[in-house]
Amino acid sequence: MELLYKGKTKDVYQDQSGEIVLYFKDDMTGKDGVFDPGENQVGLTVEGSGRAGLEMTSFFFEKINAAGIPTHYVSADIEAREMRVKKITVFGEGLEVICRYRAVGSFIRRYGNYVEEGAALPAYVETTLKDDARQDPLINEAALEALGILEPGEYGKIVDMTVKISELVKDELSRKGLELYDIKLEFGRDAETGEILLIDELSGGNMRVFKDKEAVGPLEIGEYLLN
Amino acid sequence: MELLYKGKTKDVYQDQSGEIVLYFKDDMTGKDGVFDPGENQVGLTVEGSGRAGLEMTSFFFEKINAAGIPTHYVSADIEAREMRVKKITVFGEGLEVICRYRAVGSFIRRYGNYVEEGAALPAYVETTLKDDARQDPLINEAALEALGILEPGEYGKIVDMTVKISELVKDELSRKGLELYDIKLEFGRDAETGEILLIDELSGGNMRVFKDKEAVGPLEIGEYLLN
Repeated sequence: MELLYKGKTKDVYQDQSGEIVLYFKDDMTGKDGVFDPGENQVGLTVEGSGRAGLEMTSFFFEKINAAGIPTHYVSADIEAREMRVKKITVFGEGLEVICRYRAVGSFIRRYGNYVEEGAALPAYVETTLKDDARQDPLINEAALEALGILEPGEYGKIVDMTVKISELVKDELSRKGLELYDIKLEFGRDAETGEILLIDELSGGNMRVFKDKEAVGPLEIGEYLLN
Repeated sequence: MELLYKGKTKDVYQDQSGEIVLYFKDDMTGKDGVFDPGENQVGLTVEGSGRAGLEMTSFFFEKINAAGIPTHYVSADIEAREMRVKKITVFGEGLEVICRYRAVGSFIRRYGNYVEEGAALPAYVETTLKDDARQDPLINEAALEALGILEPGEYGKIVDMTVKISELVKDELSRKGLELYDIKLEFGRDAETGEILLIDELSGGNMRVFKDKEAVGPLEIGEYLLN
């Protein structure tokens, strides 16, 4: 297989037939050895985290596909830590979409003058550009259109998909007594049809989850969810 | 008159009849003696700048009122550097609305990966919270509603008013050979009727203006415009 791109937590390959294969590494985002889904760098390496990330991603992507929400997911080989996906193009150099149910993290850093840490939010959606050097700047619908990153009308579609996906994840976690505080999704376009798809992964590294007001680590989430 | 509030560039009084009077000071926002409309602190004091700010504000607010766009402006006494205004309530602790025709300032700092400095923008509108400690954070429509700062539907009204006002200012400047790069407006609600009004001032300190690719200082803008 040909290596196309080395990412922070995944590498991207193309096999002989032209299909795209994501390889899940044991690296996690964070800082100084502490996991943080909001960080832009690899902060720690944990044996088994790649496999766990793929297991949870495959669990959610199959449910999301089944719910009729289009994703790039085709199939997963858990032992090999490989996920087969559709070929996609990203929006600009990557667009992240965050759905928040509780005011924590960067939301509180920005709007702490108006809301208590941990206060409930109504599936609030915001978008940020993937741009490590500029700390993933927040961007609104008008700027996404002005910069040619989204076409008119696409922002609303992405927000709708984000809320549906986040509700599905929230409900699955809730069955195990876990509460979703926030979740970070990534979208792209199907390289062939142009359809908007959920891309990347959907694992413990993409979300903040709490149980009885205590944070649940990214690997622990999978243990609750898949057992 | 009773002093209600001491601002960075204006003080707010209430007279015996209950009317609100803004007193325009000679202080300007900036840093280390250099004017910057994006700064949150008083950076310099220039004799005559208060009077010049009121002259330009009165010039524009009369035109904006005449165009049927509601503002808080009632009348001005240029000699006394006083502007009579309607009593208003602000959105949250103050909402600033920026309309951009060229990619400069914080827009480039955020989105410089996608656009050249100085590139044209199509009357792009964004909103920030007045919060010096948090460097006036950018905020989107959904967050303004989630935090109870705007009611559903108000964001769109404010964007419409902003574009109309900005176009009017742009056209007036253009008649004098000046180009508007960006402009910062503030809105509030009429304390009696709840109607959304343009508030605060509209002077050289609220806008970046260029002539033949050279920046025009805030006091100079008035000299071009009013002579």
